[in-house]
Amino acid sequence: MRSITTAGEKKLVLVSGRANTELAEQVAQCLGTELLPTDVYNFANGEIYVRFGESVRGTDVFIMQSHTTPINEWVMEQLIMVDALKRASAKRITVIAPFFPYARQDKKHRGREPISARLMADLFKTAGADRLITVDLHTAQIQGFFDGPVDHLVALPILSDYVKENYPEDLAVVSPDAGRIKVAENWSSSLGGVPLAFIHKTRDITRPNETKANRVVGEVEGRHCVLVDDMIDTGGTIVQAADACMAAGAKGVIIVSTHAVFSGPAVERLTNSVAEEVIVTNTLPLSEEMMFDKLTVLSIAPLLARAVHEVFEDGSVTSLFEGDGA
Amino acid sequence: MRSITTAGEKKLVLVSGRANTELAEQVAQCLGTELLPTDVYNFANGEIYVRFGESVRGTDVFIMQSHTTPINEWVMEQLIMVDALKRASAKRITVIAPFFPYARQDKKHRGREPISARLMADLFKTAGADRLITVDLHTAQIQGFFDGPVDHLVALPILSDYVKENYPEDLAVVSPDAGRIKVAENWSSSLGGVPLAFIHKTRDITRPNETKANRVVGEVEGRHCVLVDDMIDTGGTIVQAADACMAAGAKGVIIVSTHAVFSGPAVERLTNSVAEEVIVTNTLPLSEEMMFDKLTVLSIAPLLARAVHEVFEDGSVTSLFEGDGA
Amino acid sequence: MRSITTAGEKKLVLVSGRANTELAEQVAQCLGTELLPTDVYNFANGEIYVRFGESVRGTDVFIMQSHTTPINEWVMEQLIMVDALKRASAKRITVIAPFFPYARQDKKHRGREPISARLMADLFKTAGADRLITVDLHTAQIQGFFDGPVDHLVALPILSDYVKENYPEDLAVVSPDAGRIKVAENWSSSLGGVPLAFIHKTRDITRPNETKANRVVGEVEGRHCVLVDDMIDTGGTIVQAADACMAAGAKGVIIVSTHAVFSGPAVERLTNSVAEEVIVTNTLPLSEEMMFDKLTVLSIAPLLARAVHEVFEDGSVTSLFEGDGA
Amino acid sequence: MRSITTAGEKKLVLVSGRANTELAEQVAQCLGTELLPTDVYNFANGEIYVRFGESVRGTDVFIMQSHTTPINEWVMEQLIMVDALKRASAKRITVIAPFFPYARQDKKHRGREPISARLMADLFKTAGADRLITVDLHTAQIQGFFDGPVDHLVALPILSDYVKENYPEDLAVVSPDAGRIKVAENWSSSLGGVPLAFIHKTRDITRPNETKANRVVGEVEGRHCVLVDDMIDTGGTIVQAADACMAAGAKGVIIVSTHAVFSGPAVERLTNSVAEEVIVTNTLPLSEEMMFDKLTVLSIAPLLARAVHEVFEDGSVTSLFEGDGA
Amino acid sequence: MRSITTAGEKKLVLVSGRANTELAEQVAQCLGTELLPTDVYNFANGEIYVRFGESVRGTDVFIMQSHTTPINEWVMEQLIMVDALKRASAKRITVIAPFFPYARQDKKHRGREPISARLMADLFKTAGADRLITVDLHTAQIQGFFDGPVDHLVALPILSDYVKENYPEDLAVVSPDAGRIKVAENWSSSLGGVPLAFIHKTRDITRPNETKANRVVGEVEGRHCVLVDDMIDTGGTIVQAADACMAAGAKGVIIVSTHAVFSGPAVERLTNSVAEEVIVTNTLPLSEEMMFDKLTVLSIAPLLARAVHEVFEDGSVTSLFEGDGA
Amino acid sequence: MRSITTAGEKKLVLVSGRANTELAEQVAQCLGTELLPTDVYNFANGEIYVRFGESVRGTDVFIMQSHTTPINEWVMEQLIMVDALKRASAKRITVIAPFFPYARQDKKHRGREPISARLMADLFKTAGADRLITVDLHTAQIQGFFDGPVDHLVALPILSDYVKENYPEDLAVVSPDAGRIKVAENWSSSLGGVPLAFIHKTRDITRPNETKANRVVGEVEGRHCVLVDDMIDTGGTIVQAADACMAAGAKGVIIVSTHAVFSGPAVERLTNSVAEEVIVTNTLPLSEEMMFDKLTVLSIAPLLARAVHEVFEDGSVTSLFEGDGA
Repeated sequence: MRSITTAGEKKLVLVSGRANTELAEQVAQCLGTELLPTDVYNFANGEIYVRFGESVRGTDVFIMQSHTTPINEWVMEQLIMVDALKRASAKRITVIAPFFPYARQDKKHRGREPISARLMADLFKTAGADRLITVDLHTAQIQGFFDGPVDHLVALPILSDYVKENYPEDLAVVSPDAGRIKVAENWSSSLGGVPLAFIHKTRDITRPNETKANRVVGEVEGRHCVLVDDMIDTGGTIVQAADACMAAGAKGVIIVSTHAVFSGPAVERLTNSVAEEVIVTNTLPLSEEMMFDKLTVLSIAPLLARAVHEVFEDGSVTSLFEGDGA
Repeated sequence: MRSITTAGEKKLVLVSGRANTELAEQVAQCLGTELLPTDVYNFANGEIYVRFGESVRGTDVFIMQSHTTPINEWVMEQLIMVDALKRASAKRITVIAPFFPYARQDKKHRGREPISARLMADLFKTAGADRLITVDLHTAQIQGFFDGPVDHLVALPILSDYVKENYPEDLAVVSPDAGRIKVAENWSSSLGGVPLAFIHKTRDITRPNETKANRVVGEVEGRHCVLVDDMIDTGGTIVQAADACMAAGAKGVIIVSTHAVFSGPAVERLTNSVAEEVIVTNTLPLSEEMMFDKLTVLSIAPLLARAVHEVFEDGSVTSLFEGDGA
Repeated sequence: MRSITTAGEKKLVLVSGRANTELAEQVAQCLGTELLPTDVYNFANGEIYVRFGESVRGTDVFIMQSHTTPINEWVMEQLIMVDALKRASAKRITVIAPFFPYARQDKKHRGREPISARLMADLFKTAGADRLITVDLHTAQIQGFFDGPVDHLVALPILSDYVKENYPEDLAVVSPDAGRIKVAENWSSSLGGVPLAFIHKTRDITRPNETKANRVVGEVEGRHCVLVDDMIDTGGTIVQAADACMAAGAKGVIIVSTHAVFSGPAVERLTNSVAEEVIVTNTLPLSEEMMFDKLTVLSIAPLLARAVHEVFEDGSVTSLFEGDGA
Repeated sequence: MRSITTAGEKKLVLVSGRANTELAEQVAQCLGTELLPTDVYNFANGEIYVRFGESVRGTDVFIMQSHTTPINEWVMEQLIMVDALKRASAKRITVIAPFFPYARQDKKHRGREPISARLMADLFKTAGADRLITVDLHTAQIQGFFDGPVDHLVALPILSDYVKENYPEDLAVVSPDAGRIKVAENWSSSLGGVPLAFIHKTRDITRPNETKANRVVGEVEGRHCVLVDDMIDTGGTIVQAADACMAAGAKGVIIVSTHAVFSGPAVERLTNSVAEEVIVTNTLPLSEEMMFDKLTVLSIAPLLARAVHEVFEDGSVTSLFEGDGA
Repeated sequence: MRSITTAGEKKLVLVSGRANTELAEQVAQCLGTELLPTDVYNFANGEIYVRFGESVRGTDVFIMQSHTTPINEWVMEQLIMVDALKRASAKRITVIAPFFPYARQDKKHRGREPISARLMADLFKTAGADRLITVDLHTAQIQGFFDGPVDHLVALPILSDYVKENYPEDLAVVSPDAGRIKVAENWSSSLGGVPLAFIHKTRDITRPNETKANRVVGEVEGRHCVLVDDMIDTGGTIVQAADACMAAGAKGVIIVSTHAVFSGPAVERLTNSVAEEVIVTNTLPLSEEMMFDKLTVLSIAPLLARAVHEVFEDGSVTSLFEGDGA
Repeated sequence: MRSITTAGEKKLVLVSGRANTELAEQVAQCLGTELLPTDVYNFANGEIYVRFGESVRGTDVFIMQSHTTPINEWVMEQLIMVDALKRASAKRITVIAPFFPYARQDKKHRGREPISARLMADLFKTAGADRLITVDLHTAQIQGFFDGPVDHLVALPILSDYVKENYPEDLAVVSPDAGRIKVAENWSSSLGGVPLAFIHKTRDITRPNETKANRVVGEVEGRHCVLVDDMIDTGGTIVQAADACMAAGAKGVIIVSTHAVFSGPAVERLTNSVAEEVIVTNTLPLSEEMMFDKLTVLSIAPLLARAVHEVFEDGSVTSLFEGDGA
């Protein structure tokens, strides 16, 4: 006998970095499994130590991390974990980055800048990632930064179902920034073709570094404005946009966003804003202090779990992101 | 004596594919040089033969091609030329693609599509390109598709200088598509902060596959509308946008675009359109039949020549594209 | 439970570019399957759009294309399809190129030329191809241009079986070119050791750029000459070779070739030639106008189907190409 | 004229991350130049923004960073800066990492661990680094982790000159760990062949997880012990080693180390230790609170400046690290 | 039916180079299989010819070679075999190099040297190796030289079990070289915490190129010294170390080493040495003339077979090398 | 001052492996320089040690090796030297392999074979080679195996000048093998269009494994046959071919070949052959015992030196190999 033959088998393993284990555990639960026991801690000088508690040899590993603050720490942790998986003979490694790090630096805005989003994609590849799963990229072109398959999931159905149920009438979709109006257009269409508007920031020619005014372009009068964006960082832009909507005669404003970055004054600004409700997902972890009355958090875990399941079972993921393609 | 030492020297060589030798010759003239004699032709079965007429050993080569119809032919020709340059020991190879091929397929619009723009960037790299020079990418993110330096030039100053001189008053900038409004915003700012509008395509819910109407969102009444886009392909969208502007009370419409793709019915549509003037550059070659009365073609050659000069002399190119960064 | 386990499974999918869907359908039929529904068309400016109609996630894909005129179009189409397959998470991608493009530019004939055949191999690799299947390469060394497994099939058994059956006696094998005599030697041996000859092109020293004469080196008198070559392009060389055979006293001439490129005057030349029969395979599509009375087309589909089957089932392909190795 | 020729020129540029600009400025001063003006800051969510203030096109850039706490932040910052340099057309990029990050994770100590030091080398390469300069690697093998030239400098001459001048008599060199005795052997030889000893940690078989005792192996009685190591992190090991030396009859102890990591309780431990003096270099920044009476800091800047100068001028760097090779 | 589906299957194949087929056959026997029939020989000018006797398509191949003299021949043979496996469509290729070639050149000892161990790792990767299995690397950092999974096995349990059984009392572990004392420390701990010593080579300052004396640092008086090292090459160092032990009052000396390189005078030196017994494994082949009375050879085959089995079956290999990690 | 600027400079360095230092010294002399002092030797177990005696930082290095027996040793030595050059910061590394190793294994002759010539090209690339210079490749396609510039020199002018001078009349060119007749055709044309013939090996159908006879195809009667081949290995084929020529009525035979491999019985066979003279170059070293009366050795050194000079000075090398392109 000159060879040994056995039946093939596929084994799914789910691993999580430390940034958002709660979300990872939700995904595990949706899948009916548990997270791989993993030993991760920082040495005294900040270097990260990683060791997996069980063999991952030959497995199909999905490694989750939420890229919240301190974001560089969490990126590096995920890279080191991927390296350990590769060297431990994992068969295939899928990085799950629900909020893709550095997505806003997806081009050189001016000369001598980096394209950090491309760099992130290359770093994941170098560490050993075979594929990526992510949600609502800042621009869909970032898919093309990774040299391999990217499953680009969209949270819009989750969010718009909620909006449709709770705000049934007289809606208008508003983009807080001209450059992001495509997202708003998708929303408009998802809400049955409601009117579309955007905020145009004009500048005073005599004081070029200041935004003169936020003008609503489009009709919002007498309507409930759904202000949509992929992420809320410090909240400045979107809160000003909400004010502009009200100034333009809107009946009310709700704010909807996939990624709740909530840096610095964000929570305070949103709390004090004219918005009636702020609706986000948990792609990024939200501490107790970040929770405020108007805030509604919808879980992204079922969507991620379905994607993992389809990827593992070689099913079709296309149905999970129709509308913005992947 | 155990080594031989000589002074270093840098030598610039300019090479052109067959798609638009006129533009390449203009660039050569601006630089005060001539194109490298090159033997290029198709064999009977369509395969392309290339041979350079002089040595390129150790030179800093800039190889131009205009990616017009038949676009795949011209891409392949440029790839084969780059391969020949690499194997002939050129020191550095810069691909000049004034109109980047497949720029519109810069993401998966739906599942199971390619990302052809990334593929193009990778093909150029594989053939041997060290760097890229291009003009007004469909989306600036495409810079990040190439693994190396990209000099992303902008034609806006050339075009807007012409507009400012010829249409001094009562302007409004209009984007024919919500997704491209960022470009219009740059134009608005370049024209001194004139009003901004966009065309919103709404769909009839009962007939979902048809565009119900093109609605102008923003104020254009009594104004000269500057309809701006990066490229005009079949001209359908922009001509309809021009109609919508007039319907919304515009005083007149001019159409401005960097890339005159002018496929199929484009020339006829533009000729018959309500637009007073159509202003483009020669990033793509325009045959005599494509020339119509209202058409104004501004040359991109001086901009390309300056970029080549700065790249060769290690000067700064940043000044050539401030506004949209590279 | 810390992992999810399922039985492994392998799934074969067959995809085809537009150049020769007839051949692809024959292969599918031999395999007992159908081609994957695929949406492919050109945009107005010639750019190709591709989208697969069904999920290819985790599958073993074989993607066929026939590299006929317009050859650069078909190469680019196949590259774009491979990119789409890679990004759609196909598990393994095998490019089937029955007639390998640019095979004749497999070396620098003179300085400052490309090695386009190597470039093609690298482009396929870059797009995402894991392996190649091809038939009768112009030179077997091209196998080494691809960084991965190449299954190099030979059509000789198909063609020589036909010749043996129809031309049982007094054969001689003739190579139309000194450089291709190795192929003729394989034929000679396959036909049971019949005599071998080749055409030597001599040049008049006083007029160095003209071929003075085609001389048959070897004995063909009174024999049926089997003129063999890997491909017939414009047909000039082989038709002259046929004349030379007759001039040297041959009883008759048949022309045999794997790849019917049939460019330009080929069909006319062959029709009017002294050859009794022209025998080819359908590695390249033949339109109705290319069909002439003396032409016999043998199908390569069963050979390709067997190769696909063995590759998929991890059987041995060696038996399909003994004689010229792969 | 078919090409343009100019004299070649080389231009050195020195760039620094934010972790230790003081050291970078010292190096610049030694070289007679200034640091490149650079705009670096963190966005609200922690993402790093970088932009260089002047053109680096065609230059030979040396980019310094000290990998102190928060170490992952500083690694990522340097990677992003390298990406920006690459995309801004720097000709050659040399990463200077005086203290190489994650050097202690240079192998898998147990299964399912990463090899983070190799990962770091690969990340630098991926971002665009062509070469590395570093000082006293934890193990010299790390040179081999980088796919390119590494200049591995040694601080031993700087440190041992100081020791020889200040502690002229009755020395013994002691390694705090058996695995690091090679370094001590180099010291012994550099100090003229003084006796050598090491600390052997034995374990109580009945309580396997505890270190039973630190035993000095070798003779130190009546001698001034020079405890040498490449780095002092929390200081625990080396302070215990100092105690063991005294217990073994040493006349006194001085502690010498290239890298002053000084995490957690290090400063307190060293202050309270039996050591008379602690001698380090400034490869890592030392804040005011880290300065204590017994501490002597020697500058590594002149060594780095000489290395940069030799690399730029194509001189020999070998003389800067004889003894431990590079 | 648009695809063909079959059950997956895994097939293990074991291949061997010519350097040590005996060991390969032992491993095959342990696994219950046979070596793949392989045709390997040298052409007259020394070039190696390889052809496998059976199909390896889709298999999980383990290819063994022992890197004994002529070592470059055997490295090249293994590289060529890996190339043939890759081109024959093996699914996964694991190189088994029980004694890793050039492991001692794992860093630049001085400037302008190669790092040959890294080069070897890269050559294996380039040829097509996916993973490595090796035993007792000269330094564990070499694991990080290979860009992929490395299973680093340790022979210590095999060797120390033998020592414990045959030399039950009064042991001391001695390292022949300061730099290798970590290995000795592992031995000390494996033998239950016996005393540890090392040989310190001091140099006469007046004659710097000569080793003045080998001094034992640590206590060995009245003890059976276990001299341990990863390899015995010419035997000079270890035989002198044995003498030094006896001079320091040892009761006896045994020599233990994983790799029996046994170059030049090694056999003679060991035969004539004061050592009572020399215990090695068969990672390298030992000819009959290399066998001497005191020599004990323990087989490494069961360890290799277990590793192969676990790798193939996706079991855990960690248990096979606890202590020195992989 | 924010940068330091100096004039660029280029420095040529010539390095040689141990296989044929005489040829390397001849090349150095032609160039007016000396070989770089290099320390190369084998350790007791056969591992090769390399160290360069002077800095190669920033230099343009040409590293020669003659791939004679033991060929694997010399390949490995050159690879290790290239690695050392790369790590010592050489600016550009050109491998000179006058006789390319494993050139005959340039394709899979049968299934499950390697393509060793491609492997060699990849190994050189991996070690760090930027470019190749070689002479008379077995097949010109091997140029395409290397991913970078290849200067493919031809010895034909050197050899044919000698033949024309010494054998002025009644020549015929004969190829000893059908597959190599292209080379003979080049010779025929270089000698002014003399007749061309080849040896056809026919096999006895009843004894298929034996060559039945060598038949000359073409006219050689009454002529001086110039038997040409790229290399003479064991000499069997060419000596039989010489006999066949005489049997076919030739007036005399001379044997001409670029590469004098001269393995095994070659010298004896050639000495005893019917050939009047055997003319070769010194691409491979010839020991004194290999010299026999009829042998004429022409030096390849001037050709190599001219190529090195042109490559270094960025001149044109095309003139050195017109006829077979590079």
